[in-house]
Amino acid sequence: MPRAHYVGVDMGGTSFKIAVGDAEGRVVCERRAATQSEAGPEVVLARLAAESKAALEEAGAKAPTAIGIGLPGTLDMRAGVVRYLANFPGHWRDVDVRGPLEKALGAPVHILNDVRAATLGEHMFGRGRELGAQSMVLLALGTGIGGGVVIDGKLRLGALGSAGEIGHTILDPNGPPCGCGSRGCLETFASGPALSAEGVRLVLTGQAPRLREIVEGDANRVDPRAMGEAANAGDDKVRAAIARAGTYLAQVIANLIVALHPELVVIGGGVAGLGDLLMDPIRRGVRDYVKMFPVDTVRIETSTLGDRAGAMGAIAWAMQGGMPE
Amino acid sequence: MPRAHYVGVDMGGTSFKIAVGDAEGRVVCERRAATQSEAGPEVVLARLAAESKAALEEAGAKAPTAIGIGLPGTLDMRAGVVRYLANFPGHWRDVDVRGPLEKALGAPVHILNDVRAATLGEHMFGRGRELGAQSMVLLALGTGIGGGVVIDGKLRLGALGSAGEIGHTILDPNGPPCGCGSRGCLETFASGPALSAEGVRLVLTGQAPRLREIVEGDANRVDPRAMGEAANAGDDKVRAAIARAGTYLAQVIANLIVALHPELVVIGGGVAGLGDLLMDPIRRGVRDYVKMFPVDTVRIETSTLGDRAGAMGAIAWAMQGGMPE
Repeated sequence: MPRAHYVGVDMGGTSFKIAVGDAEGRVVCERRAATQSEAGPEVVLARLAAESKAALEEAGAKAPTAIGIGLPGTLDMRAGVVRYLANFPGHWRDVDVRGPLEKALGAPVHILNDVRAATLGEHMFGRGRELGAQSMVLLALGTGIGGGVVIDGKLRLGALGSAGEIGHTILDPNGPPCGCGSRGCLETFASGPALSAEGVRLVLTGQAPRLREIVEGDANRVDPRAMGEAANAGDDKVRAAIARAGTYLAQVIANLIVALHPELVVIGGGVAGLGDLLMDPIRRGVRDYVKMFPVDTVRIETSTLGDRAGAMGAIAWAMQGGMPE
Repeated sequence: MPRAHYVGVDMGGTSFKIAVGDAEGRVVCERRAATQSEAGPEVVLARLAAESKAALEEAGAKAPTAIGIGLPGTLDMRAGVVRYLANFPGHWRDVDVRGPLEKALGAPVHILNDVRAATLGEHMFGRGRELGAQSMVLLALGTGIGGGVVIDGKLRLGALGSAGEIGHTILDPNGPPCGCGSRGCLETFASGPALSAEGVRLVLTGQAPRLREIVEGDANRVDPRAMGEAANAGDDKVRAAIARAGTYLAQVIANLIVALHPELVVIGGGVAGLGDLLMDPIRRGVRDYVKMFPVDTVRIETSTLGDRAGAMGAIAWAMQGGMPE
């Protein structure tokens, strides 16, 4: 009997990552390629199949046992169909992912939301495994805020695979409009764009001299990374803006802790690169907010897998055989 | 082999309820007695043991197979010890419940929070069973707001048995002080006392003529029941106050739905007696807030067991053998 090999794919709008894992979940090969999403679904799926085959060959594997694919959008997980991918040019709608890929690769294809994949990755192979956490919550801070919940070792999906959308926790029903159609979601206060917008305001009002220098006066270049640099270089208002985002995150995390009492909360995504500038206010806020029980029973940590979490979680999803009936 | 009989107890500050169930979970006997909590733990536990024996005798059972007890406070579930019961005169602290009761009744005693017991009751024998919901959230609206979460048929407890404290979801970190030590918890906006306080304000400012009549000008008599009556008799401001409480509840429920996507949310506790005056704004609010997926996939219903849920859930807890290791 040939050795089992699982393919995990993390599909992004600009690039996708492929990892091949063995039956023990060890990653034996990783590749990355441009998505070229402007070419349309058919071309993208053909590229994905070709890159998967190349990765399997590199790993010395003949055929995959199963393939897991994390996708950033609304899915029909049971049908293997993408209902809507907002971040892809042309907005993929009702695209059958499973059919063409199962045909091309000759093995079962299981899709799931990309941040749910990252949650599973951190749980099985990252911070969750390191700390032995059976229940955990992940927040991925980027252009949006994605999330995922694991309870007693099982990824929480709900009937539609949509559970875990923590970025759309409503903090202020009268707050800024969110891309989801609601108002005042966490995403409108603590995502990368929300943070950058406040950075731009601080530059425009002369309250962030270091940030202004770093981006050479160009508002287009204001991003969380530049803001972290400016905060460390002495821009106190920028530091405070990052801390405010952390305090909003803390409120949502505190509320999840009193509802679910997970052992671990993982902060991932690009904005997590701010490190202690963000993590200290999050931890402080959670301590301030949770009075129902000793909150030192919950670890709040950055991701250990970083941008590898999605592909590794997709391997785990393939190993699990996707969504149970 | 004699037939199995389980005792379920719902312990309140003024009265406690005892139910005896058979191995199929059918309630064969129910009793109620005054707690006489001012007499202190020793006397209360002796009364509880005596009433349990009387209930078992009434049910034609010789000895119980196991006993489950729901208690309104902070517990060490594994040790069977009450850490703190706020609503009992003298504030029970570090009271061993399991030891004396196991000795008196000769069977294992399993304790849990009273609202978690009610959640289990609604899940196993009430609205959850009626609708076949495997995942559900319960909110019990009373003097405080308690809660409970069931995921995939399992009551979510967390390491300390404290998961499910949904009443302490923070809506406004700068809001009114909450009994828990935090600020702006749901409980400060939508509990019975929060609602009554707004009723009193409306009476004092001449904005609630019907309510004023109903309570004969006595602020002590303003409560959610009187407010419901006043709203139905034409006090629009009172109706709006109830609707505002419903909208706060809707925000918290919406946030739990995007995080967990349960199939069912149950509204229990005395304040749920307001019926559609409260349920309509809750359902409307949830529809307004949740944009991530079709929210008609989640049922929002009142409890079917009412104040029997706690004792019946305690039976279920006894049948399950309490907290798994």
